[in-house]
Amino acid sequence: MKAEIINVGTELLLGDIINSNSNYLSKELAKLGIDVYYHTTVGDNKERLKSVLNNSLKRSELLIFTGGLGPTTDDITKEIIFSTLNKKMILDENILKGLKTYFESRKITMTDNNKKQAYIPEGCKVLQNDIGTAPGIYYKDEKHNIVLLPGPPRELKIMFENHLKPILKKETKHIIKSKTIKLIGIGESSLESIIEGIILKQDNPTVALYAKEGQVEIRVTAKSESDKKADELINNLINKIKPSIKNFVFSYNNESLEEVLIDLLKSKDLKIGVCESCTGGLISSKITSVAGASKVFDRGITTYSNQAKIDELKVSVDTLKKYGAVSKETALEMAKGLLEKTDIDISVSVTGIAGPDGGTKDKPVGLVYIGIASSDTVLTKELKLNGTRKKIQNKTANIALNEVRSFIIKTFDL
Amino acid sequence: MKAEIINVGTELLLGDIINSNSNYLSKELAKLGIDVYYHTTVGDNKERLKSVLNNSLKRSELLIFTGGLGPTTDDITKEIIFSTLNKKMILDENILKGLKTYFESRKITMTDNNKKQAYIPEGCKVLQNDIGTAPGIYYKDEKHNIVLLPGPPRELKIMFENHLKPILKKETKHIIKSKTIKLIGIGESSLESIIEGIILKQDNPTVALYAKEGQVEIRVTAKSESDKKADELINNLINKIKPSIKNFVFSYNNESLEEVLIDLLKSKDLKIGVCESCTGGLISSKITSVAGASKVFDRGITTYSNQAKIDELKVSVDTLKKYGAVSKETALEMAKGLLEKTDIDISVSVTGIAGPDGGTKDKPVGLVYIGIASSDTVLTKELKLNGTRKKIQNKTANIALNEVRSFIIKTFDL
Repeated sequence: MKAEIINVGTELLLGDIINSNSNYLSKELAKLGIDVYYHTTVGDNKERLKSVLNNSLKRSELLIFTGGLGPTTDDITKEIIFSTLNKKMILDENILKGLKTYFESRKITMTDNNKKQAYIPEGCKVLQNDIGTAPGIYYKDEKHNIVLLPGPPRELKIMFENHLKPILKKETKHIIKSKTIKLIGIGESSLESIIEGIILKQDNPTVALYAKEGQVEIRVTAKSESDKKADELINNLINKIKPSIKNFVFSYNNESLEEVLIDLLKSKDLKIGVCESCTGGLISSKITSVAGASKVFDRGITTYSNQAKIDELKVSVDTLKKYGAVSKETALEMAKGLLEKTDIDISVSVTGIAGPDGGTKDKPVGLVYIGIASSDTVLTKELKLNGTRKKIQNKTANIALNEVRSFIIKTFDL
Repeated sequence: MKAEIINVGTELLLGDIINSNSNYLSKELAKLGIDVYYHTTVGDNKERLKSVLNNSLKRSELLIFTGGLGPTTDDITKEIIFSTLNKKMILDENILKGLKTYFESRKITMTDNNKKQAYIPEGCKVLQNDIGTAPGIYYKDEKHNIVLLPGPPRELKIMFENHLKPILKKETKHIIKSKTIKLIGIGESSLESIIEGIILKQDNPTVALYAKEGQVEIRVTAKSESDKKADELINNLINKIKPSIKNFVFSYNNESLEEVLIDLLKSKDLKIGVCESCTGGLISSKITSVAGASKVFDRGITTYSNQAKIDELKVSVDTLKKYGAVSKETALEMAKGLLEKTDIDISVSVTGIAGPDGGTKDKPVGLVYIGIASSDTVLTKELKLNGTRKKIQNKTANIALNEVRSFIIKTFDL
């Protein structure tokens, strides 16, 4: 089934919000074996929306519209699409009742413009909105499946999962399956040169490379009638490229660095603590974003001021005076300080200059030191990064997580 | 000038990456007064790219393509566009030289497929890539301006800023200016009901509302010949709606909660410390993502284990036994503990259950306590949130930042 996604909303064209809906829907449709050929974004404008609709009707079988179902005057998606298709709008008493209950339960006054959401085109299936007020719509004729979903990402996701996915599953026959391998420490071009011979020969599964903030991903995608057959195709290909890439891989299963690290810590029954300066809590925050982090993560201390480094981590005043807060000596004392005051097994520290101010000729913005300590081994690493404050903080956090991962693999034998 | 953005890349249609380029370009073009009417995403496929190009040539004057300029075999944007426009490709010796230097300086072998990037269509202006290998292209004839930019966001941004923006500035005459007001504690529908009369009467400036994870934004956009006139139009409108909205506004200037909080702390010469459990460092990380946070932020302590709460914040064993780690009593002791051991002026704590596991009937996932303490005032607040782990963590962090903001305004008079 040829599909396309059409996002309606002037706010997207003004760059006010990132278009995460087309990303989410694309991923979900791919899993169902539905090929998405186009994304289109168009504003809340009658003529342009109509012309996009007419163009899409010519080239696609499944049209998924998002946005413009809200109560406000610039929400026109439903009206334009179904007036173009010559469908009458009918007041749906059930939806109206639902809306009333929704507003009552939240003790909010239902405004007149909310009632607009209870009108549904004839012959359509209503897709229930489990957490918001705008119902979705599913319309089908001989040539087309047309779907309208609400714009707020949370509402859209829950509606897709609970009400649209079951319908689309019935409409498709084959499946598409992907596996993503994640690598760190190699560039996209070098990686392609290494595995080029294998990529070019492949039609099913296909292989694609993506570069992402210092990481590279290899995505292997197979199309097949069964889950089992798709897995076979994917695994055969991965086995072929494995010998050339294995030194750079941190996950064969699309996991994030923090997920891989937490699994590794769990498997070795180790507890970790984090002390941060320039990343200001980002490393702790990444680790604790993973469910179950509490089994391996004990505490994180962000020592932003020098006094905090002295109080919390027993960094010596002499070290701070002699080498400065941004130095490998301070990084090491931070990591050791945390290790000594707790019963954790590994401690990782980070101190650096995230910018945009605070850099000097000797210690420019982007200079970062990582320290890692266990009871019998220590390690420091100097980084010279560039980019905005947020980029430097994010790169530092990722590199620190990967350094800890390597450290554990080398230091804590099974 | 009617513009549209066309993103080329199958990875976008598969949902592998979020389309941040169209968001960035839309924002930048809006600032230049260029109206963006469409975003289109199409895969690395000759026929479909050609049909998108032909459709866009009919309706727009400025076409900005992103992606597909890389060295690999599926990068076809340049070839397809300029073969459709009947332009010859010529080897550009300067670019080839630049590529060689780029690879030599990085000590990477230049592969044969990189040479493809040195071919440029006749009659085009090369947009230099200051940090990557793929040059951009600017083409102009009587009817159209066609631009090709590389896909990696960092390369695209630097090329836009340094090389494309100066060209586009010359091509446009008027400017568009926007101001964004941020509110918390009111829903989108209620807000529209309040200011509807004013919105409907307005053509220039226009007013638009956006809901974002518990916050609402009002964007006021004016089109004018001069910066000064645009400011006047915007400020007049804001003065009209101010009396109805002022209780919910935390920024009239599109600042984030953390930026507003840091400015407030600076203005009152206060230092803050953060102690976190369920947010795991996220509040610290948000605060320290703002440049200059070191002036007001002393330290952040993530006490994930009970032992860490006892060690670092002197939470009493009795409190943990009697009320549990997730309780207003623990939240308060955490905040007080941090305040007492440091010379900060305000301390904020958070303890809760972010899920997906760990909830009970009495203390379900989403139950969170916030504690705030200054030398003479304390406050606790109970939250009952829903959503994924990351949503609960993020909402908690935002609400905590806003609670601290209100606390400071009430407690620390100027």
